[in-house]
Amino acid sequence: MKKLWQKDEKDSSKLVEDYCFSDGVALDNNLVNHDVYGSIAHTCALAKLKIITNLELEKLVKCLKEIIDLNKKGKFIVTGGDEDVHTKVEKYLTEKLGDLGKKIHTARSRNDQIAVDMRLYTKEELLNIAVLINKLTDTYLHFAEKYEFIPMPGYTHMQKAMPSSIGMWIGSFVESLMDDSKMLQTTYELNDQCPLGAGAAYGLSLPIDRELTAGLLGFSKVLNNSLYAILSRAKSHTVVMQSLVQVMLTLSRFAQDMLLFTTSEFNFFKVDSQLCTGSSIMPQKKNLDIMEFLRAKTHVVIGYEQMVNSISAGLPSGYNADFSETKGPLMKSIGIVKESLKVVDLLINSIKPNIEILSNSMTKELYATHAAYELVKKGIPFREAYVKIGTSLDELPQYNSQEILKMSTHTGGTGNLGLKKIQKDFSKQENYWLKEKKKYMSVINKLIA
Amino acid sequence: MKKLWQKDEKDSSKLVEDYCFSDGVALDNNLVNHDVYGSIAHTCALAKLKIITNLELEKLVKCLKEIIDLNKKGKFIVTGGDEDVHTKVEKYLTEKLGDLGKKIHTARSRNDQIAVDMRLYTKEELLNIAVLINKLTDTYLHFAEKYEFIPMPGYTHMQKAMPSSIGMWIGSFVESLMDDSKMLQTTYELNDQCPLGAGAAYGLSLPIDRELTAGLLGFSKVLNNSLYAILSRAKSHTVVMQSLVQVMLTLSRFAQDMLLFTTSEFNFFKVDSQLCTGSSIMPQKKNLDIMEFLRAKTHVVIGYEQMVNSISAGLPSGYNADFSETKGPLMKSIGIVKESLKVVDLLINSIKPNIEILSNSMTKELYATHAAYELVKKGIPFREAYVKIGTSLDELPQYNSQEILKMSTHTGGTGNLGLKKIQKDFSKQENYWLKEKKKYMSVINKLIA
Amino acid sequence: MKKLWQKDEKDSSKLVEDYCFSDGVALDNNLVNHDVYGSIAHTCALAKLKIITNLELEKLVKCLKEIIDLNKKGKFIVTGGDEDVHTKVEKYLTEKLGDLGKKIHTARSRNDQIAVDMRLYTKEELLNIAVLINKLTDTYLHFAEKYEFIPMPGYTHMQKAMPSSIGMWIGSFVESLMDDSKMLQTTYELNDQCPLGAGAAYGLSLPIDRELTAGLLGFSKVLNNSLYAILSRAKSHTVVMQSLVQVMLTLSRFAQDMLLFTTSEFNFFKVDSQLCTGSSIMPQKKNLDIMEFLRAKTHVVIGYEQMVNSISAGLPSGYNADFSETKGPLMKSIGIVKESLKVVDLLINSIKPNIEILSNSMTKELYATHAAYELVKKGIPFREAYVKIGTSLDELPQYNSQEILKMSTHTGGTGNLGLKKIQKDFSKQENYWLKEKKKYMSVINKLIA
Amino acid sequence: MKKLWQKDEKDSSKLVEDYCFSDGVALDNNLVNHDVYGSIAHTCALAKLKIITNLELEKLVKCLKEIIDLNKKGKFIVTGGDEDVHTKVEKYLTEKLGDLGKKIHTARSRNDQIAVDMRLYTKEELLNIAVLINKLTDTYLHFAEKYEFIPMPGYTHMQKAMPSSIGMWIGSFVESLMDDSKMLQTTYELNDQCPLGAGAAYGLSLPIDRELTAGLLGFSKVLNNSLYAILSRAKSHTVVMQSLVQVMLTLSRFAQDMLLFTTSEFNFFKVDSQLCTGSSIMPQKKNLDIMEFLRAKTHVVIGYEQMVNSISAGLPSGYNADFSETKGPLMKSIGIVKESLKVVDLLINSIKPNIEILSNSMTKELYATHAAYELVKKGIPFREAYVKIGTSLDELPQYNSQEILKMSTHTGGTGNLGLKKIQKDFSKQENYWLKEKKKYMSVINKLIA
Repeated sequence: MKKLWQKDEKDSSKLVEDYCFSDGVALDNNLVNHDVYGSIAHTCALAKLKIITNLELEKLVKCLKEIIDLNKKGKFIVTGGDEDVHTKVEKYLTEKLGDLGKKIHTARSRNDQIAVDMRLYTKEELLNIAVLINKLTDTYLHFAEKYEFIPMPGYTHMQKAMPSSIGMWIGSFVESLMDDSKMLQTTYELNDQCPLGAGAAYGLSLPIDRELTAGLLGFSKVLNNSLYAILSRAKSHTVVMQSLVQVMLTLSRFAQDMLLFTTSEFNFFKVDSQLCTGSSIMPQKKNLDIMEFLRAKTHVVIGYEQMVNSISAGLPSGYNADFSETKGPLMKSIGIVKESLKVVDLLINSIKPNIEILSNSMTKELYATHAAYELVKKGIPFREAYVKIGTSLDELPQYNSQEILKMSTHTGGTGNLGLKKIQKDFSKQENYWLKEKKKYMSVINKLIA
Repeated sequence: MKKLWQKDEKDSSKLVEDYCFSDGVALDNNLVNHDVYGSIAHTCALAKLKIITNLELEKLVKCLKEIIDLNKKGKFIVTGGDEDVHTKVEKYLTEKLGDLGKKIHTARSRNDQIAVDMRLYTKEELLNIAVLINKLTDTYLHFAEKYEFIPMPGYTHMQKAMPSSIGMWIGSFVESLMDDSKMLQTTYELNDQCPLGAGAAYGLSLPIDRELTAGLLGFSKVLNNSLYAILSRAKSHTVVMQSLVQVMLTLSRFAQDMLLFTTSEFNFFKVDSQLCTGSSIMPQKKNLDIMEFLRAKTHVVIGYEQMVNSISAGLPSGYNADFSETKGPLMKSIGIVKESLKVVDLLINSIKPNIEILSNSMTKELYATHAAYELVKKGIPFREAYVKIGTSLDELPQYNSQEILKMSTHTGGTGNLGLKKIQKDFSKQENYWLKEKKKYMSVINKLIA
Repeated sequence: MKKLWQKDEKDSSKLVEDYCFSDGVALDNNLVNHDVYGSIAHTCALAKLKIITNLELEKLVKCLKEIIDLNKKGKFIVTGGDEDVHTKVEKYLTEKLGDLGKKIHTARSRNDQIAVDMRLYTKEELLNIAVLINKLTDTYLHFAEKYEFIPMPGYTHMQKAMPSSIGMWIGSFVESLMDDSKMLQTTYELNDQCPLGAGAAYGLSLPIDRELTAGLLGFSKVLNNSLYAILSRAKSHTVVMQSLVQVMLTLSRFAQDMLLFTTSEFNFFKVDSQLCTGSSIMPQKKNLDIMEFLRAKTHVVIGYEQMVNSISAGLPSGYNADFSETKGPLMKSIGIVKESLKVVDLLINSIKPNIEILSNSMTKELYATHAAYELVKKGIPFREAYVKIGTSLDELPQYNSQEILKMSTHTGGTGNLGLKKIQKDFSKQENYWLKEKKKYMSVINKLIA
Repeated sequence: MKKLWQKDEKDSSKLVEDYCFSDGVALDNNLVNHDVYGSIAHTCALAKLKIITNLELEKLVKCLKEIIDLNKKGKFIVTGGDEDVHTKVEKYLTEKLGDLGKKIHTARSRNDQIAVDMRLYTKEELLNIAVLINKLTDTYLHFAEKYEFIPMPGYTHMQKAMPSSIGMWIGSFVESLMDDSKMLQTTYELNDQCPLGAGAAYGLSLPIDRELTAGLLGFSKVLNNSLYAILSRAKSHTVVMQSLVQVMLTLSRFAQDMLLFTTSEFNFFKVDSQLCTGSSIMPQKKNLDIMEFLRAKTHVVIGYEQMVNSISAGLPSGYNADFSETKGPLMKSIGIVKESLKVVDLLINSIKPNIEILSNSMTKELYATHAAYELVKKGIPFREAYVKIGTSLDELPQYNSQEILKMSTHTGGTGNLGLKKIQKDFSKQENYWLKEKKKYMSVINKLIA
């Protein structure tokens, strides 16, 4: 199929085409709407430049909106020969509108076009991820409140250490996700800059109104320097990847905990068998595959991040085709993070603590530190108390676990987890994202109204 | 040497000690001051708990300040047998103050101690890095202003693309560093939470005042959940590593550009020979090794980030010794980033554009897009103009490069780089960091006054 | 859809299914034939165990061969609900043969089944890659012979260093690929062990004849320890990935060289425009995208290797679902390596040196070391000769490049590249792979005859 | 300090020196002997070229041997100002022998010098690692033999799966290390090629006898193409790194197993308390830190490998200073692997199975598959037997674990682990490495006799 940049009919090699475009083409189907959004905004700028008339503007916009409809119906599929979504869209316009379609690429390059598509796509997906983080945070928070004082052993080095509680354990995930959300917010803000109008990387000799297009698309600012607007493409993906890794790190800890706590040796939690998978050979097996996949997928996302980092490193200034190879890792990672957040939410909603087993697990050695502190209160220097207890562990009394948990009243202790205060902070976080989502949707709805 | 946790005289294996502690011990020498800061704050909390008297408090603090003096003189070196800086400090106190020294570890674990040390160390180093980023941004900005309209070819795919300028080229690094600074700011804020008082990971059965210690150390908040306070150690390092990678990505692009632009084939810049190295065999060589090292060190920092990510992933909740292995990658990366920022600053201050060569490089094909736009202005649809120019490249006229550069007046174009506006935004950034640095230093000075 | 391991009709969650199986299912379509090969061998072992009769054996084998036919016609597609290729195959047999189909999974687990599938698949693909390496090595070798004494500047630190030749430059890729082939051979041998019969990981309480199945499938040995047979799955992938990375490293150097040598500033080679791509905005552009993609895809394969390494690290003994996540990175990397080898072969066959430009690039400073050696021959200590030449570079004479190239007669010098000897060694390498490929194909043909 | 390549007294910038050389200098102290070996061989080649007389040869060799003596006594330390070990050695010779010292760098570059140093260093260390692998394999093998039929539960997905034994569990490590040894052997052979004489990368216009030097240094062949000889430096490191990763992957699985099996919940093994570390706060703790460090250090080595891969990727042909940054990751990884092999050996020699606990862990569900096979033997199709057992797990009888273990008589089953045969294969492996080590040592001893 003839490419935008072909001046004659000689075909480029099939092998070359496959090597460069075949992966990207499949991924470009995620970008159809965003390419249309960008094109509508660009068309408005062309009208302002008088490159096209208002009537032509109307025709182009109408035709572009058709693509959104077709896409919704699954009838606008970018395929192998299309090279990319931009070419497909331009061809559609040319087929429908003739010479007018040939005007749309004035003052635009596929370089700024893909940059704006990716930033719109990323914006939308970061909002989706934020909503899922909020949902899971909320689920964790309720679980922590429900079982706040159910005792469970606290481990260090995988060995029994000190008394802990489900409240403290699950509360640690709540706070971890809230830190992740803060990082995501900065990522969101750094992403929220409009590269459209930067052309191939060096701007244009036409006075295109970049503030206009940025505003129509709902970006909070124009991404100024044309060169930076284009080459930040890969770099802006690394920023996103890093905030995705943060979420996966939080969840992977939960995965490892669940795998450990649901062994028959620990057996701290009951899991709904619908969330387990079986074995083809062993009739008795109930495996928590989802948590093993989560553990593995964390390394997948870390690996994707490293790919994007390494691809970006050491490239010379200007647009480089290498950038294209960062699209896949980003899109796949976004998919993994969304699914992982949902899977954990599903799991949390299905587990029940085995309260008696947890209670029986609160063995004496967990209280050794507490016993040492009792000696300290009697005036013995801590290091001596420590040795005294450490050399007479057999004599440790059996404490009441609930009492001990409630006795730890300092900020963030088992008796003072501050779940109410966290709930308040969390509401602020929720509102931030809801507001951003609403803002984005209203801009887009207006654009394609 | 006897360890804090040894209850008898039996020595642990030398091999075990080396395997676990030898790397860490060397790195711990970067933490002596921070360990003292944390210990002073902790001692105040012990006094408030009445574990020690006010007189004892005074003695302990005095003794702790001695360590800072010794450290300044290079006389407080943590070595192999010490296990770690915390043990070394406790031993010093016990040697000097007897039983009183044995009290200091009450209501504290090395787990929250290293966590607070690392967060103080990181805070300080992030401030140092921010200052260096500001310095380099300023240098770039002046270079961009000085040579704003010196033409240079703009490349895409390493091929000549469109007219560019030194202003646009260098301006792209200014804006890149400013985005990096924003990421660094979030990293700084996420780091700025105090884990002290979380104990081994599960809090304490003593009502220690965590707000007091956080305040004395200048943290903006208490890191609430005790478990999260401890296990976020590795995760908080991953956040820092990611913002360091961002800086290296910006600089590695500059490295590759410099290596390319100083080949004899390009020859766009003259470099001071003091910044070059020679060959042991070839008498004529002047190599820009520093930019090759920068290119390589970028992958080193990316690799370190990946290490810290992977080490952190899939660990169960609680303190894990694995965390220790994240200290080296973090500290080494911080060192590399600081040196790299300085090296680039030095280089920028020493290069001079070869203006005539740059001018001669502005060959005709760079203006092909401009020529197509001239046809567009005459009413020819862009795609047709594109083909027309593309099939008659030999007929392109020679344009005046300066004129063309200035004609690109849209936001972020070569004729409208907005350097003045950027200067203003940059001042805000500079002020943020200066204020934070001042705040931190005044808190520390008060603490050890 | 009901799974092999479901004992009742209750469906597992759709989300769980998608999370665990959706990626894998698509990839499993690459394994249909291998699953059938393994199943035929396994069926023979069941007959020997008298679990099935010879007549039943015949029926099962006939039915399994049907699957190969269906697969050839694209009519045996593993899809979402199937869970995996093994389930799909077992279901097909059960549908066709009733109770007999239900017998095939005796003495087998999907764990040893996927292990043997992957080792067969890998064997086949390593043979394919070896053939492509051989082809490219041959192409390079001819290119090196053809242009053996065409001078080109030799660079170090991207600066002109000493006289070199196309023979030396291309010869370096020949020898690099030959080292890669040696590594591939070890990978091939380590892969060539049969895990079938290891069951879920702990063997079986049935005396299955593992030598029989290994022999039928053409493996050179049984992978002994049952546990190792299963858990080496991920580890054996890491070995393969590493040898793929080696090939990509060789090719990525070629990519960077080509990108540099085809800039208009170097312009050492002419490239057929059919291998170039254009720009949507700049009418004049001819970009060597394929080499940029090769450069980027090298980091993709490195990233995939790191993923597989990290996923494998730190897993406990036994089968872990994490292993599944290594299938994608392996298969995708194999695809990239095969395509990359083809693309480079295509490119080499299309480039022509710009002999005059190369000749003009042989500027005087390239001979500085040679000039120093001339002084050495007159008895001046090298370090003094070096300084003398280094401080009077302007006085260097212009040497005849061809003469100088031929004067370097030591082993591996430009005048003694040993291409004939290399040709001989390469023939041995070629024969090894041809023999292995023939052996494998004859075994498989016999199995499915 | 003046550098080899400085022609005047003007100092290069301190910052530049630190940035480029400070890391490398410290590491170069590992290379003093190897640099001397290479220099002796090179000197012999110079004599053959008549660049120096036989008398001069004698003087130079004598002086070079002095360096080995000094190094043994810790009196030949490469420090900051020296730039590198090569410069330090050349300076020593010049100080001692005047003009004669200035001759040694004839027909040599630091590029081929570091290449040969690194290959000699690597050869030596691979031999050291092979010896440690052999030692650990032997230890594992004895442990497997000693406890061959002690039952332990076999896990998949971290859930109880089927009966296993210590013999099978430990046997899996034996076979894993034996595969690793095969990979190491190829690495060793690929490394065993001599780059000396390749000069800066483009050979020399002097007919240096590369076969002579390769022979004197005990290399099995000359690394032919001069350019490949130099630029394979980084690539040859990636090959080594990959074989190191293989060893760490094997050991990291052991680490995770040990951490799990020594939790109080599993409690399968007793560990000597000298191999455990304690807590500063909790008197009762005995932590198996060494296995946590091993788990983390595995990711460190994986990260280092990825660093070396990424640094190497996409560099243009010729020597690049980037190569220097691969030295640290290689040397540090070698150190980690050696220590890790020793630590695991120490641990294995100190653990004892808790036989009663292991026995009690052999709960009924482990035999579900066996029970299904009993139905199969009665003629019930496996899939039906599977469902029957799966829906009546409560009725499973209690089997005798030893009997069941011994009943699994197929190759690699618990009753037929083939430890005797493995012992034989292992002896061959041991002999290979012993022979190679002896060969290397005899060459070196002759060289410096």
